[in-house]
Amino acid sequence: MVRNSGPKIKDIGEFALIERLADSLGKTGRGPGQGVIRGIGDDAAVLQATSGTRILAACDMMVEGKHFDLSYFTPQQIGWRALAVNLSDIAAMGGKPRWALVSLGLKPEMEVAFAEGIYAGIAELAQKHGVAIVGGDTCSSPNCMIIDICILGEAYRSQVTYRSGANPGDLILVTGNLGSAAAGLSCLSSEKQLQIEGKERLVETHLTPFPRVGEAAALIESGTITAMDDISDGLALELHEISQASGLGAQIYQERIPQDEAAVSLAAHLEVNPLDWALYGGEDLELLLTIPGGNGSPYKARRLARILKRTTGTSLTLIGRMMDQAGDVEMVDPQGKTLPLPAEGYNHFR
Amino acid sequence: MVRNSGPKIKDIGEFALIERLADSLGKTGRGPGQGVIRGIGDDAAVLQATSGTRILAACDMMVEGKHFDLSYFTPQQIGWRALAVNLSDIAAMGGKPRWALVSLGLKPEMEVAFAEGIYAGIAELAQKHGVAIVGGDTCSSPNCMIIDICILGEAYRSQVTYRSGANPGDLILVTGNLGSAAAGLSCLSSEKQLQIEGKERLVETHLTPFPRVGEAAALIESGTITAMDDISDGLALELHEISQASGLGAQIYQERIPQDEAAVSLAAHLEVNPLDWALYGGEDLELLLTIPGGNGSPYKARRLARILKRTTGTSLTLIGRMMDQAGDVEMVDPQGKTLPLPAEGYNHFR
Repeated sequence: MVRNSGPKIKDIGEFALIERLADSLGKTGRGPGQGVIRGIGDDAAVLQATSGTRILAACDMMVEGKHFDLSYFTPQQIGWRALAVNLSDIAAMGGKPRWALVSLGLKPEMEVAFAEGIYAGIAELAQKHGVAIVGGDTCSSPNCMIIDICILGEAYRSQVTYRSGANPGDLILVTGNLGSAAAGLSCLSSEKQLQIEGKERLVETHLTPFPRVGEAAALIESGTITAMDDISDGLALELHEISQASGLGAQIYQERIPQDEAAVSLAAHLEVNPLDWALYGGEDLELLLTIPGGNGSPYKARRLARILKRTTGTSLTLIGRMMDQAGDVEMVDPQGKTLPLPAEGYNHFR
Repeated sequence: MVRNSGPKIKDIGEFALIERLADSLGKTGRGPGQGVIRGIGDDAAVLQATSGTRILAACDMMVEGKHFDLSYFTPQQIGWRALAVNLSDIAAMGGKPRWALVSLGLKPEMEVAFAEGIYAGIAELAQKHGVAIVGGDTCSSPNCMIIDICILGEAYRSQVTYRSGANPGDLILVTGNLGSAAAGLSCLSSEKQLQIEGKERLVETHLTPFPRVGEAAALIESGTITAMDDISDGLALELHEISQASGLGAQIYQERIPQDEAAVSLAAHLEVNPLDWALYGGEDLELLLTIPGGNGSPYKARRLARILKRTTGTSLTLIGRMMDQAGDVEMVDPQGKTLPLPAEGYNHFR
């Protein structure tokens, strides 16, 4: 008899499922080391933080049909992406991600292999960053698949980087290219046959973004970062967040916003403005940061960019400056005209 | 003009919602102290653990229609219960719950007041236990409401209590009454008109259970607990978990299992066996624990029960003993007959 599909989750039940998921993590789940005194398998994980550090904690929930579409996400990609957005949050605070807990709401009709695939994607990215999966929850969710990851990291007090630390005159920089994930999503949801060089790069940024963990560590190492945020809701909104938290304004130059050439070509094909992807698209997981302004600061920015490129391969671009006037977030267009930048971005529920 | 309902979540959007939810937490959310360096409002919370402690971390997800029914749960009760099951996990490890992150998946059509009600329920219970709500996530979930809480606690190394610490001959004890939550759920879902004294107590145990945080602390203080678990999936399954983790067997006496009189009366009315609620019902959040056996151990158990009653008002009942034979979990019935106790309980997906 030929079987077209493996066992379903409802066939094996919760307890066997937990066993299989824990197994599919390999040493990312159960092994000793990494400060894990007890991982999966008791009421709570028991963790040993590095003495003198502060604990960083965040969580990020993804819901089927809202954050991911099962028609173009593989289970591995869902797992990867769910962990990536969490790693990005810890990186943006200047911390080292260490432990994660994974809550999964699964449809009973799903194949066990699907859930194992999610865990395989989580394990792959976790291993790259030395993160241990130490616990979580699995439950039945008849109407939609849900994945919620809680990430724990740590940082020495002097390394913790808040949104609120920017000062007037600070230079504003971003890592990598902005708007690629939004461009990738447009590729996936477009019905047109698109033949654009570099298209795969954009799609990959949407499906399996690389959180800038190593980049954040190298930047923090430089000792010059005054504020940092990851760009998960688009540049405009993140600029507003840093401005608001620091009680300042911000001015950026449109021509300086780094974008992937493929995104620009794609936008031309789709007859949309690629700038909208960069400003309001989000989900790139690039970093937005500020460094002190003043004499010699553009030189310092260039030196920091060279160091980052050499150590991580990632670019760093100077895009603007923090301003005195609280709440005024503006963009200077190529004609030199100053436009207000609204606090818009990806807003759930609307 | 009379307004029958307040604004909906989709009317105010994600960012205003987060503001309102943070506000509805009051000092449980934003205030200083409690080791919170930065709570809600940045990429991650920044927490200061007590020097020398270990971090305990767990999470528990609840999905509408599976874990709670909006026809008899108020928003406050949903919030309370979601936090209660998490507090219970930390208590069962011998820890002090300190910080929580709340992920909410909400329907855009829901009223803002509903989400605020959930947070009010969380805040009420959090405040009782000195827990700060330091972060989380809100997102749109069109098909079902979801709440996932991640709890962080801490404990000194000598206080951490695993499932695996029981020894042969150890006495098995439980706090409170078992099966009340399952009885309460039967009340709520029954179509019969039930006039039973104490019914409200059972229903309350299902809707807003009291996690045994103070009880666990008092028990740990005694220095005699070898293993502990909270009873979230029924006595039978938790007994198997302690037995398996400790590589032992267990024997309990049916007549010793403590049950609320109201549950016994209700079972008679509904013509079901109340024992099933205690063995397989779960969600009582009572504690199952072991203390060393040997000479004088029943006396020590009685003394521990007296201390617990005096300090917390909660009863502690000796129900059996850990046995040498790994995997053999048995119950002695009133006729003295030994029956195997299957590893059954609340199993998601089946």
